[in-house]
Amino acid sequence: MIDPVITLTTDFGAGSPYEAALKGVIVALNPRARLIDLSHAIPAQDVWHGAFFLASAIPYFPADAIHVVVVDPGVGTERRLLCCDLGRHRLVAPDNGILSLLAQEHPVDQAVQLTNPRYWLPVVSPTFHGRDILAPVAAHLSLGVDPLDLGPPVDDLVQLPVPQPQVNEKAMEGEVIFVDSFGNMVSNIPARGLATKLPQVFVNGQIPARWVRTYREAKRGELVALASSTNLLEIAVVMGSAAEQLGRGRGTSISVRF
Amino acid sequence: MIDPVITLTTDFGAGSPYEAALKGVIVALNPRARLIDLSHAIPAQDVWHGAFFLASAIPYFPADAIHVVVVDPGVGTERRLLCCDLGRHRLVAPDNGILSLLAQEHPVDQAVQLTNPRYWLPVVSPTFHGRDILAPVAAHLSLGVDPLDLGPPVDDLVQLPVPQPQVNEKAMEGEVIFVDSFGNMVSNIPARGLATKLPQVFVNGQIPARWVRTYREAKRGELVALASSTNLLEIAVVMGSAAEQLGRGRGTSISVRF
Amino acid sequence: MIDPVITLTTDFGAGSPYEAALKGVIVALNPRARLIDLSHAIPAQDVWHGAFFLASAIPYFPADAIHVVVVDPGVGTERRLLCCDLGRHRLVAPDNGILSLLAQEHPVDQAVQLTNPRYWLPVVSPTFHGRDILAPVAAHLSLGVDPLDLGPPVDDLVQLPVPQPQVNEKAMEGEVIFVDSFGNMVSNIPARGLATKLPQVFVNGQIPARWVRTYREAKRGELVALASSTNLLEIAVVMGSAAEQLGRGRGTSISVRF
Repeated sequence: MIDPVITLTTDFGAGSPYEAALKGVIVALNPRARLIDLSHAIPAQDVWHGAFFLASAIPYFPADAIHVVVVDPGVGTERRLLCCDLGRHRLVAPDNGILSLLAQEHPVDQAVQLTNPRYWLPVVSPTFHGRDILAPVAAHLSLGVDPLDLGPPVDDLVQLPVPQPQVNEKAMEGEVIFVDSFGNMVSNIPARGLATKLPQVFVNGQIPARWVRTYREAKRGELVALASSTNLLEIAVVMGSAAEQLGRGRGTSISVRF
Repeated sequence: MIDPVITLTTDFGAGSPYEAALKGVIVALNPRARLIDLSHAIPAQDVWHGAFFLASAIPYFPADAIHVVVVDPGVGTERRLLCCDLGRHRLVAPDNGILSLLAQEHPVDQAVQLTNPRYWLPVVSPTFHGRDILAPVAAHLSLGVDPLDLGPPVDDLVQLPVPQPQVNEKAMEGEVIFVDSFGNMVSNIPARGLATKLPQVFVNGQIPARWVRTYREAKRGELVALASSTNLLEIAVVMGSAAEQLGRGRGTSISVRF
Repeated sequence: MIDPVITLTTDFGAGSPYEAALKGVIVALNPRARLIDLSHAIPAQDVWHGAFFLASAIPYFPADAIHVVVVDPGVGTERRLLCCDLGRHRLVAPDNGILSLLAQEHPVDQAVQLTNPRYWLPVVSPTFHGRDILAPVAAHLSLGVDPLDLGPPVDDLVQLPVPQPQVNEKAMEGEVIFVDSFGNMVSNIPARGLATKLPQVFVNGQIPARWVRTYREAKRGELVALASSTNLLEIAVVMGSAAEQLGRGRGTSISVRF
């Protein structure tokens, strides 16, 4: 038998005792759980960043992994906590839209609200449901508990507005939706097929970014556009940070002309 | 049989080769060890921060975990290295007071000084006992070595002075003892029962912080007081950093009036 | 049977979705793999830093671990990807010199170029070979694939120029080759035997650093020289950062007189 994988994605920041407590709760309930840190550096309470992160990473995991997501600015309010099966991926997370982007490609098969306190810690802090509800629920799931025992099914998940690119045969208009740790600016414009069309790319309507296939086709410091590793149009500075050089971030408009 | 859990708490900072070497030493001696990172971001040589961190996190772990703690400003001096059983929790750590807070709730059942070089690396660097003594000792413990084989029992552990709150029926006076990665300021004032008393809370004797049950009962930017997830009175700024907004940190006085 | 260890060393930065995707790829192919994070904080594209990191950490690992290294500024160019056995240590990494320092002490037993797409992801992004080639290759190796199935042997690995110290009976001249997270400056001057010679140490030819055996032999703030935990001459400031106090880093000259 293979020990179950439980992954952790939080906005706790480096070295938080909250991360450590979460891990303790899980291995205390299921000593066979294999913990894998996905990130504890989602920017604090940045649900959108978390949504992009999950959409980029979760699809690579096997079906039997359980993913715990604690980016929960609404803790202590009426926002719901969920166990969701998105295609073959199972996540426990607050119902704040953080699953929206992942759900675009992996639609919801089943979602339940976590209401059954039998699978929670005996005492629940009003400010830390990650430790007291999400972590123990994930541990119980890894021990074989049926999601339908956790609470009632729900089908009206919170959706974040996902900015859609405008696409026609001559042009595409989109915006930056994610800035990675290198300062690369990833847009919502699909990159599939772009390479063969020799596109002209502009940041903010006017700053040209030369289309390349890889970083190394350009000189150090040059602003380029290329297909990101998630196959979206990305603006980058070779051996540098595009976000810093342009002084811009999420929401910056990106235009493509053919 | 379940593979043993060994957790790591250090002040090495992100990406240190010291963290990596520690992990190598452990899995080389016990390839079945499951390593769990608690933190490598304890502020450098900040024994007090480490003490609060351990008291917040270790109680959630199961009894058979082994916890390696390397915050060791006294490395190379006569300070002792210990294996301590605090209630059901087993830690290997320098004897510098870093276990003081945890030991308040989980008294020392047994402590031994690590003097038997049979369980160390063959060569011990004068500047890195974490890698050369603590890590191999933890690995040997996970293989079933009896702590009493590691060295002689000791019963005079170093204690950090733990600031105690002044409490009477009309008021409580305490201080901030921990600032978390969100900038929340956790005090040494117990929060149990406070909610029903509608307390008035002041930072530094004069700045009022409104008592709330959860962050979301207040407006963005408002200074509030609430029960922390470890059930201590905490000062927070909703969607912000209290420590930054107040320009204050550990030692800031906190007063409660009824 | 013991589950295989796969370690990860990257320059992705804290909280990158690239780290998470890498982990997903590995556990999807080999659900028994034990992932161990060595570092995701190698400075971006800093091959030399990565080389020192690996030389400091890998030797502590057992022989059957597999080490994935993704510091890959040349991704998408003709630079090769390799599986190398350096003594008993097996690494998958770009052929950019990042193995140079480790290979000085652990010579190459076998190296193959990764050319067989059977062991890659079905689609390979031009910008992320770590996820699409190195990670799946490591997973397949952990399942027992023979390195010789991965591609043809190579014997002309890229070598970084490794600065060598000048040593004679009266003096040694070297330079700082690594600055750790505490600001300690590690040089390329071997420290073995230095302690008995009462050496005089100078930074940049003129700033004296007193030789000590451990940090605690000096006062807070004093500039000292001592043997690093990797047994190289190290410049440190007690309870402070030498790199910050001196305003200097890699390449700074270090002189020793007897």
